[in-house]
This record gives sequence, structure tokens and C-alpha cells, in this order.
Amino acid sequence: MSKTNLPPSGMRDFLPSEKFLRQYVLDVIRSEYTVNGFTEIETSEIENLANLINSDGGDNTKMLFKILKRGEKLKLDRAPDSEDALTDLGLRFDLTLPLSRFYANNRNDLPNVFKAIQMGYVFRAERPQKGRYRSFVQCDVDVIGDPTNLTEIELINTIARTVSRFGLDNLVIKINDRRILKGYVMAAGFAADQFADIAVTLDKLDKIGKDGIVKELLDKQYDRDKINALLKISDAIASAGLAAVKDYSTEGYANLKTIIDVTRAVQDLAKVEFDHSLVRGMGYYTSTIFELYYGDAGMAIGGGGRYDKMIGKLSGVDAPACGFSIGYERLIDILLERGFSVPAGTRLALFYQEGDDLTEVIKHSIALRDTYSIVSVFLKKKKFGKQVDRIKSEGFDAFTIFAPEMEIKDL
Amino acid sequence: MSKTNLPPSGMRDFLPSEKFLRQYVLDVIRSEYTVNGFTEIETSEIENLANLINSDGGDNTKMLFKILKRGEKLKLDRAPDSEDALTDLGLRFDLTLPLSRFYANNRNDLPNVFKAIQMGYVFRAERPQKGRYRSFVQCDVDVIGDPTNLTEIELINTIARTVSRFGLDNLVIKINDRRILKGYVMAAGFAADQFADIAVTLDKLDKIGKDGIVKELLDKQYDRDKINALLKISDAIASAGLAAVKDYSTEGYANLKTIIDVTRAVQDLAKVEFDHSLVRGMGYYTSTIFELYYGDAGMAIGGGGRYDKMIGKLSGVDAPACGFSIGYERLIDILLERGFSVPAGTRLALFYQEGDDLTEVIKHSIALRDTYSIVSVFLKKKKFGKQVDRIKSEGFDAFTIFAPEMEIKDL
Repeated sequence: MSKTNLPPSGMRDFLPSEKFLRQYVLDVIRSEYTVNGFTEIETSEIENLANLINSDGGDNTKMLFKILKRGEKLKLDRAPDSEDALTDLGLRFDLTLPLSRFYANNRNDLPNVFKAIQMGYVFRAERPQKGRYRSFVQCDVDVIGDPTNLTEIELINTIARTVSRFGLDNLVIKINDRRILKGYVMAAGFAADQFADIAVTLDKLDKIGKDGIVKELLDKQYDRDKINALLKISDAIASAGLAAVKDYSTEGYANLKTIIDVTRAVQDLAKVEFDHSLVRGMGYYTSTIFELYYGDAGMAIGGGGRYDKMIGKLSGVDAPACGFSIGYERLIDILLERGFSVPAGTRLALFYQEGDDLTEVIKHSIALRDTYSIVSVFLKKKKFGKQVDRIKSEGFDAFTIFAPEMEIKDL
Repeated sequence: MSKTNLPPSGMRDFLPSEKFLRQYVLDVIRSEYTVNGFTEIETSEIENLANLINSDGGDNTKMLFKILKRGEKLKLDRAPDSEDALTDLGLRFDLTLPLSRFYANNRNDLPNVFKAIQMGYVFRAERPQKGRYRSFVQCDVDVIGDPTNLTEIELINTIARTVSRFGLDNLVIKINDRRILKGYVMAAGFAADQFADIAVTLDKLDKIGKDGIVKELLDKQYDRDKINALLKISDAIASAGLAAVKDYSTEGYANLKTIIDVTRAVQDLAKVEFDHSLVRGMGYYTSTIFELYYGDAGMAIGGGGRYDKMIGKLSGVDAPACGFSIGYERLIDILLERGFSVPAGTRLALFYQEGDDLTEVIKHSIALRDTYSIVSVFLKKKKFGKQVDRIKSEGFDAFTIFAPEMEIKDL
């Protein structure tokens, strides 16, 4: 095996300037989530493999990083029956499964209505390509234990306030309710148990367009008349708006009406819009679903929804739950594109020379730290002009040369 | 494979109160490191296995978590020749190897004198036992590129200031120089190339005592007269102090004299003491070594030293380097034992009732967040007294019930 200085394929290191931005963004997200009444938990990055595999995680379970068994447990004397003989641990692929496991394990020590923050790395062995990472950060907020739509309102409010902290306007939160989707799929003549499969196709509207959807549904052997009826209903809702969905789900209508009215009235940081075509791929959503978009191009930078059955399925104890996740890596990319600069105090370089009393130099540096946000001490070099240029390029804003009476010079 | 709600053996989840403390401690360490002129980087938790194995990492390389190769690369049709046929990635076991790899890869984009912060999880498949974790956080500061002992002085100053931010007094930083150790081992009559092996034994003084050291050196077939001479020199230095080491290493003496004099003069947060018996196990240290101790029992909660040859060995390009690491998990344990409480603002619970105008409730909650550090909205329950007790036990300090004129009540 040969050594390389690069991180493994799909993994990343971060230089000081990159890490500074990443840490700032994490800190702001954490602080805004916290102010809104959420408390942070942390779960292990390594999970028992059985939990990951039996998780209903869809395609994500095909992209698991599995960890080799150790010592006596690892039998290498013959061909293994399967991968399972070699491994019993894996890296988590999302934060929702760990949250559910955590909740099941600690329920008695957690608040009745548990407003959870979880931020951390997840790992997926995707085919490496530009902009696709095999380890990336997710920043989730979830409310477990509250069946009312106060939860959706608080999540939308929290997410809008958080993302706008980075100076992003032109934010849109699209919202829909799975019960409405199911209602009009069934009104078109499909059976209830066909909904999940049809939703998988409808979710591809962005990618394959209306014609693509018709083609895929026909390929799946669905009836052409029903497909046409579905499109007709869909068009009618698109032009008439939310009022038109009452016929398909009164519960869904009432739910969205409240959420949209309240979130519009309490904030104008993100525009909240009903979108009857919003589906979201995951099958575990039970009612409200939402996605956060940024900019004219409408790039998705977050999403979530209500999953009232998932925790019961995973843990055996039912609990209503709803979550919203910020696409942290995409947010970072947007901030980099916009030339976002992290607010920072003055960074001062303090130069000393051979022969200076080091004790006095350090005492001065300690005193200067009361005034400057960062103070770093350097030995003055012969080519001082060059050294100052270099220091400036490293992000320092000012310097001073140690002397009984020091003068601070801006860079 | 059966599911369990516990994290894997040796791994941990953290409840909100635990995570709150952990995050606070991380934030303080980061902020104090930063003010002192260090900049943070981040490296991948997953490394190419070859780098981990060829790292001179000693016993740590025996405790690697290795990741299974994926897809076509994984051949399961016959008994594998070795573990290496099954795996090409592993989880890092420390932050020093990734730092060296990172430095080798990014040297041209880094400051001449690179003052690095690295904080993150490392993974070791230790035999699980109480207080031993298989994943734990390290918080390192390293200076690469400065051969002067300004580096040691700044590291000691930074570490002392950081740890004392948590109200810990009774801190001692013990310091020694490997050249002094080598000098008096050779003065006792041993050969230069026996030093590394003898140092491994001397490092066990805490565990096996002086008699144990004599026994182990005899077992290793070293000459009894030389061992006695070594003990005699050691005793002489112990009673005479730093002045006595001039004869064994003038460079080591001058180095420690400067570091001790300056760090004592500029701070009194940690007592800086010469300790001729300090060895530190790792073979890569080249001169200064230090350890941070807390409390009457003298529990080690940090350590480090200068490793001027390591980066050259790993990357092919020499660079002087010196680092200090805080034992984060041990620090957390100490703070928990001391009942340390994180400074926090007032947490307010805002109750509303069925029928209240939700828009007004949320507007109030947003306004209250200007005054209170955390505001969380709850639906008022019939058994309100019980609900208030529960909220209080969850850490809330005050509550109010939504009304046109609201009254804030302390809990």
C-alpha cells in the first residue's frame, strides 16, 4: 500500500480560511436553533450495522461504510459466507436514524416535547464526483412529541431566521401535505396502495418534466385515463391554489392553511408558498412536507417534514415527530460563491527582535489580547518588508514592533 | 443481526445537558486558542489505511478501525490473503498524523510559521472498560516552522490560560528536555542507541516505581553498575534541581531555563516545574516535553512536546514542530466531578392555550427572544402545575402564559 498526502477519495481537509467559515456557520446555526428553544444532542458516528441495515434508509443503506470486525471475531481462514461475516459496525448515513435510536434509548430522561438539535458528519460511499462528498455535515432540528402544527410553524420560523442570518434573502419555503397528494392521486382513480409508488415518480418532476412523468407511469403499467385525470387535477390545483385542495383532504387543507397564515404573519424572511407538486422522496413522511429554496434559480438548501410513524416503527413506542434540515454543505457553497466574509475582529502581529526581553514581549502580547481579537507573536526577520507582506496575506490587519513605546500600524 | 437502542460498545451518545457542557468546553478552548494566534484546520476522520499503518503510531496502529472495501474491489470468493485484501481505509487514531499529512499537502498555502488548532474525534479499538472510550475528542495546538523556544512559551501560556478558564487552579506544568534525559543516561555509561529502549522503561516510574524500573532494566540484560549509576545521577538531579543538568546537556539546560523563567514571569495560572523524571512514551520527541497536571492527586490532563523530525519523516520535507494537547475527555470528567455549571442566560417557557391566536403567540415569542436567551413555546395542559414542574426540571428558569398583558414568573 502506498502513502499519499491527499485525503481519501470523496473526503476533505479544510484550510484555516475554509474552516473559519465552516465553524462560523455552524456556530450561527447552533445559536439560532438554541435561542428558539431547541437543545443539542450528540450521537455516535459509528452505529451497530444491524440498525443501519434495518432502517428503511432506502438507497442510503447501499452506500454504507462498513467497519471490519476485529481480532478473534474476524475469520480469514476461508471464504466468508457474506460481507456480514466480516463486519458488525458501520458509519451513520444520516442523523434521523441515530435520533430515533437515541430517543428510544433515552426517552425517560428527555422532555415531553423534545426539541432536538443534531449537527455532525454523515457518511455515504457515493460514486465520487464534483460537488459530491462521501462525508458531509448535516444540521437538523426535530420536534418529537408534539402532534400540533405549532411544531411546523416553529420549525419554519427557526429555519428562516437561521438562514437569513447569513444575509441570504430571496428565500422561499415550499410546503405541501402528503395527505393532499394522496387525496388527489386517489381522486384520479388510483388505489390507496398505489400512492407510494406513484409518489416516487411524481417526485421526479424537476428532473424529467411532465412528459417524463407520463412516460414513467405508463411504463409502470398504470392506466392512461387515470394518468390524464391526475394531470387534470394537478393543473386545476396549480391554477386555483390552496383553496382547491379542500376536496382532496380537509385535514391537509386546514393544516397548511394554519401553517401558511401564521408563518407569513410572523416573519418575512422567507416567503412561504403552497406547492402542490412538492413530494419529497422518502416514504416515511405522513403529512406536512417542506423544502427551502434560495435565489432565482431556486436551489434547494433544506427540507423536512412530519414523520409520525417512524419512531414507533424503529423503537416500538409511537411518538409524533417533525424535522427540518439545513443543507449545510450547499449553504457553504452559496456563501463562498457570494464572497461572504465572516465578521472578525482585528488580528494583530507583534514582532520582537533577537535580544529583546522575551518576558516583556509575552507580557505585552497578553495585554494586547484585551484590545485585539487575535494577537500572534513573531520573531522579526531581516527581510522585514517581505515578512510584513506575508503576514498581511495570511489575514493579519495590523502589526507592531516590540519597543518600550509601541506604535500599532495598520496593514 | 439484532437491533439494539444502545450505541456500539465503547461509543457514546450525549443527552442535552451533557452535550451543553461538552460544547461549551469546546467553544472556550477554541476561543482561547484563537485569541493566542492559532488558526483552526480540519482533517478527514477517514484516512487512507497505508498512512495510518506506516505512521510510527506504535500501539495505536494495533487498534485501528478498518473500513471494508466496497463493490468490485471486495473479493469474497476465496479466503483473503490478509486483512489488507479487505480494506483500504481506516479511522484516524490521533490528530498528529493527519496534521503532518495535511501540512505536507498544503504547505504552500500555509503561513511560514503555522500555528494550528485541531479539535475532533479520534478512534481506537481499545478493550472496552469503564472510562475508556473507543471514540474521543482531542484538542491540539501545534506550531510548525518555528525552531525557537518562543513556541514552547506560547504553548504553555496558551494551555494554562485555556484550562484556567474553567475555574481550575492547582495546575502544574511539568517540563523536561529529552536531550537532558539522554545526556544522563549516557553519563551513566549506556550507549546512545540504548536510550530509546531505556526511556520506555523510565517512562513507567509512576506505575512500577523505582524498584520496578531496576527490575525491568535488569530483565532487559542491562548492566547493574550502569543502572546504579543512572539512579545515583537521577537522585542527584532530583535534589539539586535544574542547575544540576548543565553537565548533561548545555542546550537542554539553556532551553528549559528560558522557558521556565519566562512562563513563570508572565503568568501564574499554572506552576511551571522542571521534572527530570518526565519521559513521555512516544519516541518522536526531540527536545522539550511537557505535561499538564491538575489537583492534589496530580492527574495528567494534557501533554506534548517538540518533534522536529516527524514531519520530515512523514512528508519528506523537514519542519520544526511542537505541540500541546488538552485531554478533553478527562477535563470534562473533572468538570463534572466539580459540579461545574455552564454560564447560561434565562430560559423562558411561553405557554399558550387552545383558541389563542397563534400568530400573536409566535410574535410574542420572537419579541421575547430579544430579552431571554432561550424562549420555547408550549401548549398549556390541563394539569398545569405538573407541566410547570416538568418544565422546571428540564432547565427552564421562568415562564409566562400568553395574554394581552403578560407576567413573567420565576421558576
